[in-house]
Amino acid sequence: MKISIIKIGGNVIDFPDKLEEFLALFSKFPGHKILVHGGGVLASRFGESLGVMPEMVDGRRITDKDTLDIVTMVYAGLINKNMVAKLQALNVNAIGLTGADGNLIQSVKRPVKNIDYGFVGDIEKVNTSFLNTLFEGGLHPVICAITHDKSGQLLNTNADSIASALATSLAKEHHVNLYFCFNKSGVLVDEKNENSIIPLINEEIYTELRKENVIHSGMIPKLDNAFEALRKGVHHVWIGKAENLLLAAKGKLSGTIIERHRYDLY
Amino acid sequence: MKISIIKIGGNVIDFPDKLEEFLALFSKFPGHKILVHGGGVLASRFGESLGVMPEMVDGRRITDKDTLDIVTMVYAGLINKNMVAKLQALNVNAIGLTGADGNLIQSVKRPVKNIDYGFVGDIEKVNTSFLNTLFEGGLHPVICAITHDKSGQLLNTNADSIASALATSLAKEHHVNLYFCFNKSGVLVDEKNENSIIPLINEEIYTELRKENVIHSGMIPKLDNAFEALRKGVHHVWIGKAENLLLAAKGKLSGTIIERHRYDLY
Repeated sequence: MKISIIKIGGNVIDFPDKLEEFLALFSKFPGHKILVHGGGVLASRFGESLGVMPEMVDGRRITDKDTLDIVTMVYAGLINKNMVAKLQALNVNAIGLTGADGNLIQSVKRPVKNIDYGFVGDIEKVNTSFLNTLFEGGLHPVICAITHDKSGQLLNTNADSIASALATSLAKEHHVNLYFCFNKSGVLVDEKNENSIIPLINEEIYTELRKENVIHSGMIPKLDNAFEALRKGVHHVWIGKAENLLLAAKGKLSGTIIERHRYDLY
Repeated sequence: MKISIIKIGGNVIDFPDKLEEFLALFSKFPGHKILVHGGGVLASRFGESLGVMPEMVDGRRITDKDTLDIVTMVYAGLINKNMVAKLQALNVNAIGLTGADGNLIQSVKRPVKNIDYGFVGDIEKVNTSFLNTLFEGGLHPVICAITHDKSGQLLNTNADSIASALATSLAKEHHVNLYFCFNKSGVLVDEKNENSIIPLINEEIYTELRKENVIHSGMIPKLDNAFEALRKGVHHVWIGKAENLLLAAKGKLSGTIIERHRYDLY
């Protein structure tokens, strides 16, 4: 079975027009597909209006009990269910899920070391047989950034990590491609020039680009995660803008494709 | 297939201890089962803290855009997902759903007559084949009081009506029993005496009890709905306290059972 896993973040979710446009593209995306989403600035904004201020450490939200309630409401309720309703209107048989539903994604609360992240989950396992049941039923899962510990506790979980975990788990049985929509057109040679996309990266090219400092800072963990997914059997990883997703599906130049295998030049 | 549909309201959801106790009972409830829930006072309390005041007409919430967002967050997010996580800890393979997920329940926005209820849905159809897929996958749906119009709009929908609609739709193929948990031990001869439960009501007895004014006011629509469900093929309807649910499942005296068929005394 060919499965596409598409992850969107705040740069799509936070803008109603962009989200609408994205959902239309997603509806046309061929084959079995999973949409993974976080919550963008909505959760923070909403928390603030309730007097719960977001606390971030290294780009990760510190999730106390009140913050967990807010992200559960915003991610699993407001954002997820409105997307599902809109996809249903586009004749995509979407089903909105957290990691608790059908025991889809089981996590462990992150151990406290230097930082206490609070109710944050690190993924332990993915229930792929549940996903197979859904695919066989013609359903398209829409999965938000919340998992559980199988002991009754919901846990806030990074959406990129969820997309990767789903991809690597499903790759054991299926042909899986992973698409990360973000705020740039792909991996760029010149950060300021959206036309300077590097179309294809493999491990050899990645090593060179890091040496030359073309790829640095925030792109490094993204690409490390991508290669990790590829080593675990994911077919390819794409990074680019949401609006270019359909071009990517058609194999057209539209972002950066990350593949594991080196070109054999001999 | 034998299916039990159990509806709980604010008198269970609003009290963490009672909810915990109920979920433990639900986990022991035999066979295929669906849990239907609204949101109790949580949504109102939460809306108030955001400055959105609940407006009620004839016991129904008027659902403007802000109120819809709040009930979506509280019902589909906070309450639903925490219940699912707790059921998973009790080894019930629960899956939390709105009517939008899998196009489960399609509604139409209530037409404006004397009152504009806002984003309130009247149920049009239930997707039983989706439910069959879930049952075959060993899943137990936990369904909140939100549906959609299949045109992208979520709609706030009465939880009793959802439970009845699910029951009558599934009754076409399955043996369905419907359980309404409420704040009394059943239909009482004397409202002030919780021990004065009428154990069994059929249409003949109902007619008599109404004549004698034993059944009046709020109980009338509840029983009318129950008989409507029975006429549409539901096997029996039970009304009682959540804590007596397991006794009911074991066929023990524990509330009021409503059955369609009259005793043939001849």
